[in-house]
Amino acid sequence: MQFRRCRVLVTGGLGFIGSNLVRRLTAEGAEVTVIDPLVTGCGGKPFNLEGLERQVEVASCSIGDAAIAPLVERAELVFNLAGEISHIHSMLFPERDLEINTLSQLRFLEVCARLNRGVRIVYAGTRQIYGVPEYLPVDEKHPVNPVDFNGVHKYAAAQYHQMLSRMGRIDAVVLRLTNVYGPRMALDIPCQGFFSTYLRKALTGQTLDVFGDGEQVRDPLFVDDAVEAMLTAASTPGLPSRGYNVGGPEALSLNRIAAIVSELAGLAPPRRGEFPADRKAIDIGGYRTDSRKIEAELGWRPRTPFAEGMARTLDYYRECLPSYLDPATPNPPCKLAHSS
Amino acid sequence: MQFRRCRVLVTGGLGFIGSNLVRRLTAEGAEVTVIDPLVTGCGGKPFNLEGLERQVEVASCSIGDAAIAPLVERAELVFNLAGEISHIHSMLFPERDLEINTLSQLRFLEVCARLNRGVRIVYAGTRQIYGVPEYLPVDEKHPVNPVDFNGVHKYAAAQYHQMLSRMGRIDAVVLRLTNVYGPRMALDIPCQGFFSTYLRKALTGQTLDVFGDGEQVRDPLFVDDAVEAMLTAASTPGLPSRGYNVGGPEALSLNRIAAIVSELAGLAPPRRGEFPADRKAIDIGGYRTDSRKIEAELGWRPRTPFAEGMARTLDYYRECLPSYLDPATPNPPCKLAHSS
Repeated sequence: MQFRRCRVLVTGGLGFIGSNLVRRLTAEGAEVTVIDPLVTGCGGKPFNLEGLERQVEVASCSIGDAAIAPLVERAELVFNLAGEISHIHSMLFPERDLEINTLSQLRFLEVCARLNRGVRIVYAGTRQIYGVPEYLPVDEKHPVNPVDFNGVHKYAAAQYHQMLSRMGRIDAVVLRLTNVYGPRMALDIPCQGFFSTYLRKALTGQTLDVFGDGEQVRDPLFVDDAVEAMLTAASTPGLPSRGYNVGGPEALSLNRIAAIVSELAGLAPPRRGEFPADRKAIDIGGYRTDSRKIEAELGWRPRTPFAEGMARTLDYYRECLPSYLDPATPNPPCKLAHSS
Repeated sequence: MQFRRCRVLVTGGLGFIGSNLVRRLTAEGAEVTVIDPLVTGCGGKPFNLEGLERQVEVASCSIGDAAIAPLVERAELVFNLAGEISHIHSMLFPERDLEINTLSQLRFLEVCARLNRGVRIVYAGTRQIYGVPEYLPVDEKHPVNPVDFNGVHKYAAAQYHQMLSRMGRIDAVVLRLTNVYGPRMALDIPCQGFFSTYLRKALTGQTLDVFGDGEQVRDPLFVDDAVEAMLTAASTPGLPSRGYNVGGPEALSLNRIAAIVSELAGLAPPRRGEFPADRKAIDIGGYRTDSRKIEAELGWRPRTPFAEGMARTLDYYRECLPSYLDPATPNPPCKLAHSS
């Protein structure tokens, strides 16, 4: 894998996974440009790239903005991670989610296809498109049944990538990521999934809550492994497929996950409680990824055991916690460009 | 099936399938309201409901317009057929297609869910979502691989229907229709599929063209059969499924279809020619529907042989051809509400 002097464009590069990717790319000698408008609630934070201000150019505009054209034109490689990630936000503000996750992607990909025909694009998709699993582990043939607007809109964007690739206008691959955790995840957004909540509580000494019976499994993926999957997908010539499921190395119950986090953080054992109604509505039960396709075709596999990744995560935040505990913003919807 | 005095809302009710549905519902004694803003290029035409002006109320606004609220509120049943149907338009004007087929549907369904919780909605989906078939006939488990923006956007709208139904907010069913033909199809839109082109040529005495080797099969569905499928889906209590493929009774090659149309119209045999590039890009090869699920679960099956349906279609247009041969409009994109 050779990224030295490669001109790389990363959308959403101030966000959780994006900033970890940018740091890795920069360490490998790539010339990185970031597009990130820091949309409220989407997890972007300038602090995530602290220390790289001189090496990384950051454009503060939407990926749907015409101003990105020259950035797209000169890129040799694109990592496309911009997006709204909160499933709960998407149910409260579905038009905002459609604009961020679908309309902006449409505009962005049209620019890519026009100004940089055939460019390799790695798109951060989500396991959320599968909805309530009909079987476990979930492979790429699993039916698509999103339980929220976020899943519908992210799936439409994934289809843009794949359709335009079939036409030869871009050369994209979609990685459907399971629950990713690690340093630089936003902790100050109220509706961003259980890892964000667990970390915020653990780091501020609060006992964790587990909803339901806690036996729902997840396969958490450490962010460094997710970054490695993206780099692998970016650098494989003649991609065998346009879409891969990307899961973690272990299937753990939420009880077990909460227990490990609590123990690492020196907390009392987790409490069990009833699901809040808004979370129950989008709960999908258990989830475990079948990652055999990406393992077989691209040679990637997750390497970081959960306890190790979580220990590294907690260590990271202990050094800089205040930067991640800004007063929680009320997460107003973006003013929709098309609202009347 | 009992629609007498039923308050029915039909979106896209001035269009091809919509107007045939409205005529049938009216004949059954239903009280029908139509929403149709006559968007250029989408096939709506006031002439399609000629003679029903006193019986059918027509609201000339978008389904995404807040003004539809009272119409939704009082409906006992909704047929949702509004949409852009041209695959070629969608490639030329993808944002227009996203607005018409996805954003407007999102707004419409949110109103349905809020003001008429649990209302039965029959949505006119499309076989186009499946793209190039991986096997024939195509059943409901076939992977979704749209070859154009229209397919991506119609699929997102179908997912809205299904997701909101799983939540109990509406009670929708998606019918994925194959190529439908029959009276009241628009003939004056340049990019609307081969049936429109064949009919326009046949009725004006021009020889038909068949692109490629002409051996690609289709399973044309006569519009009365499509209407019957929608009524059946509307009136089945406790729907067994949320999505059905709906195909025609015969699989015919394009050569055969063109030959039948030419013979019925008294024309010379069809000519064979190369695909124009814009059509080749979205050609899907052969297509044949596996309709066994709707046959087994709802008891519907297509009944009209192609030669019979086509003869009735030609008879219809011979009576009123000038009304369908307006000078072809240049099909400018709608001014997008969200364009900057």
